[in-house]
Amino acid sequence: MMSGTSCDGIDAAIVDVSRPDQQLAVRLLAFETIEYPRMLRAALLGAMPPNPSSASEICALNFTLGEAFAEAALLCAKRAGIDMSAVDLVGSHGHTAYHRPSAAGAAPRSTLQIGEGAVIAQRTGVPCVCDFRVGDVAAGGSGAPLVPYLDFALLANRLEPRAALNVGGIANVTLLPAACAAADVRAFDIGPGNMVIDECVRIATLGRCEYDKGGALAARGRVNARLLVWLLSHPYYRRAPPKTTGREEFGADYAQAAWRRGLELNCGPNDVVATVTAATAQAIADAVPAAYRRVITSGGGAHNVTLMGMLRTALDARAVAPVRLDTSTALGIDVDAKEAIAFAVLAYEAVHGRPNNVPSCTGAAQPVVLGKLVLGCAEPARISRLLEWQGR
Amino acid sequence: MMSGTSCDGIDAAIVDVSRPDQQLAVRLLAFETIEYPRMLRAALLGAMPPNPSSASEICALNFTLGEAFAEAALLCAKRAGIDMSAVDLVGSHGHTAYHRPSAAGAAPRSTLQIGEGAVIAQRTGVPCVCDFRVGDVAAGGSGAPLVPYLDFALLANRLEPRAALNVGGIANVTLLPAACAAADVRAFDIGPGNMVIDECVRIATLGRCEYDKGGALAARGRVNARLLVWLLSHPYYRRAPPKTTGREEFGADYAQAAWRRGLELNCGPNDVVATVTAATAQAIADAVPAAYRRVITSGGGAHNVTLMGMLRTALDARAVAPVRLDTSTALGIDVDAKEAIAFAVLAYEAVHGRPNNVPSCTGAAQPVVLGKLVLGCAEPARISRLLEWQGR
Repeated sequence: MMSGTSCDGIDAAIVDVSRPDQQLAVRLLAFETIEYPRMLRAALLGAMPPNPSSASEICALNFTLGEAFAEAALLCAKRAGIDMSAVDLVGSHGHTAYHRPSAAGAAPRSTLQIGEGAVIAQRTGVPCVCDFRVGDVAAGGSGAPLVPYLDFALLANRLEPRAALNVGGIANVTLLPAACAAADVRAFDIGPGNMVIDECVRIATLGRCEYDKGGALAARGRVNARLLVWLLSHPYYRRAPPKTTGREEFGADYAQAAWRRGLELNCGPNDVVATVTAATAQAIADAVPAAYRRVITSGGGAHNVTLMGMLRTALDARAVAPVRLDTSTALGIDVDAKEAIAFAVLAYEAVHGRPNNVPSCTGAAQPVVLGKLVLGCAEPARISRLLEWQGR
Repeated sequence: MMSGTSCDGIDAAIVDVSRPDQQLAVRLLAFETIEYPRMLRAALLGAMPPNPSSASEICALNFTLGEAFAEAALLCAKRAGIDMSAVDLVGSHGHTAYHRPSAAGAAPRSTLQIGEGAVIAQRTGVPCVCDFRVGDVAAGGSGAPLVPYLDFALLANRLEPRAALNVGGIANVTLLPAACAAADVRAFDIGPGNMVIDECVRIATLGRCEYDKGGALAARGRVNARLLVWLLSHPYYRRAPPKTTGREEFGADYAQAAWRRGLELNCGPNDVVATVTAATAQAIADAVPAAYRRVITSGGGAHNVTLMGMLRTALDARAVAPVRLDTSTALGIDVDAKEAIAFAVLAYEAVHGRPNNVPSCTGAAQPVVLGKLVLGCAEPARISRLLEWQGR
């Protein structure tokens, strides 16, 4: 399970994970996105920076959120007709209450995820692995990104270099050289994925739409070359990886500035949406080295047909040979469920005692088994099964 | 390892735990109390209620405190000449940042311990079990007390009922009927242990002494009968167990009120100290049912000879037959190290998948495996050893 920075809700995936012949194999059995109740979302946003909070509030919210995660797990299983007794393990990322990827003054490099794993284990009766990022931070890493572990395990190829692209609020990429070892993997944030597009759509539709469904608005607009240049001149794109970005750089303020710039250039609303979509596509294409002619996309942006079309054009314009652009679904990883699947896999690896961070991507000093195992009230037979499983 | 509510420092015990013939056996190899650096203590107290805090501060403090716990573990081992490679597991209680044993308005029953276990595992290279209380709270308990598990496992007797008394800031007792099952165990807070005595000593010595070493001041004073009656008339003593108390009821305000009452009654400083010591002894004796003729003490108060003498007298005055009053050290559990030992044992039980709460004492709906296992950067051989160990 995963809860993104947007505080919208919880992604829950039920996954069959195994390792036939040492090679990780994953099969998605069910996937749900369960929205947060309005009050809980307000409480979450209220406790996040820059709002003040307190030990008392965080203490309460950690438990309240744990209940929401447990409900999401139970609901996902119920809707899929899967009995919880058939679920061996829950992996839960929780929600990031604070993230400090590098030390600031007296405050050390640190991260805080909430959504109490002990509550999840108690309500579901299933052992839970939670709190993955702290272990990487303790090892000197930035605690992110964690999904490259999944990319490496499932998408790396012996013969061709592959780029695993995720277009969420932020677009990030994992570069997997041909026949790569974990140490060869690189990952970084490219820049905005849907974040700027979504905000411009909200402005263009006066809040009626939260995002550009299928890229329909962008398809009706015309790309403005001068606005495109303005967008791509953001200094973040010139910074060398590893690098990370977020709402601080590409949030509502930035989108509003883009909108105003568009108005100055006589863009219509759809033209602005088309142009921020084109900028996103171009920035992605610029970030993928030319040697990578296989790009595998996931995240909400993979449903934006206009964005994907523009990305294909931009990638092809750049490469000597054409680029093959697939969704991760085509390779067996549902585009929407990928992050949730990642935490199922990380949990699975954790209980087997296998390091599950990718130090070359996080900056950690060494491989670490991320995650904390909570056995909770699981029945003895279930615990024995899990412990035997670990013995392997 | 344990850090008490006084924020003084960390108790670290190195313990050989085993289960020959299913019966838990514990041998203390080393024990240290490592004081917090002054800045850290100030930061800790500053983040505790009623002071405000923030997600950002708690995030940082969790890591800073994790470093302090890791250093305490390493220091304790170093001073004892024990190599960390010989340590299989670290159990760490952490420090309670907030504790809400029952729901209050929208805030659910919840508890928050900080002192990141992933940092401890990383710095020591030893797997760590941390975060014990949340699991009991998730199961509907109050997350406390947890030490009765140790009392039950090590001090319960087939033939005689025993009272395990701990005189820390607060005095609490675990009642272990003869041949008891876990469900028969009861535990509750009696009232102040050293808390009121310490505060009166601070007032009497104008802050020169923090506590009545060996009970020397009390020994020089005379018990004032009217002050004693006033002290024992506190309504907390009449409440039926299970009950819990703390600094809110018996903190500095209460001690100052006792001091003023003593002055009105023409008590000298030592007379007040003698009388609050006598009240503590009497309240303990009143709380131990007459059938319990074996009382086993631990905690700092066990070093207060005057208190222990008064307790012996009060217990004998009440019982038909004399009461045997021992320190836990006499039964193999160092009086000072008991709480730290308890978390070593709880961690040991957790990795074996054994429930380690005592629901009859915490109010939890069921037995639960408390604690979260962090494997961290432990070497594969060490992890295999631990996982095999679990298989048993």
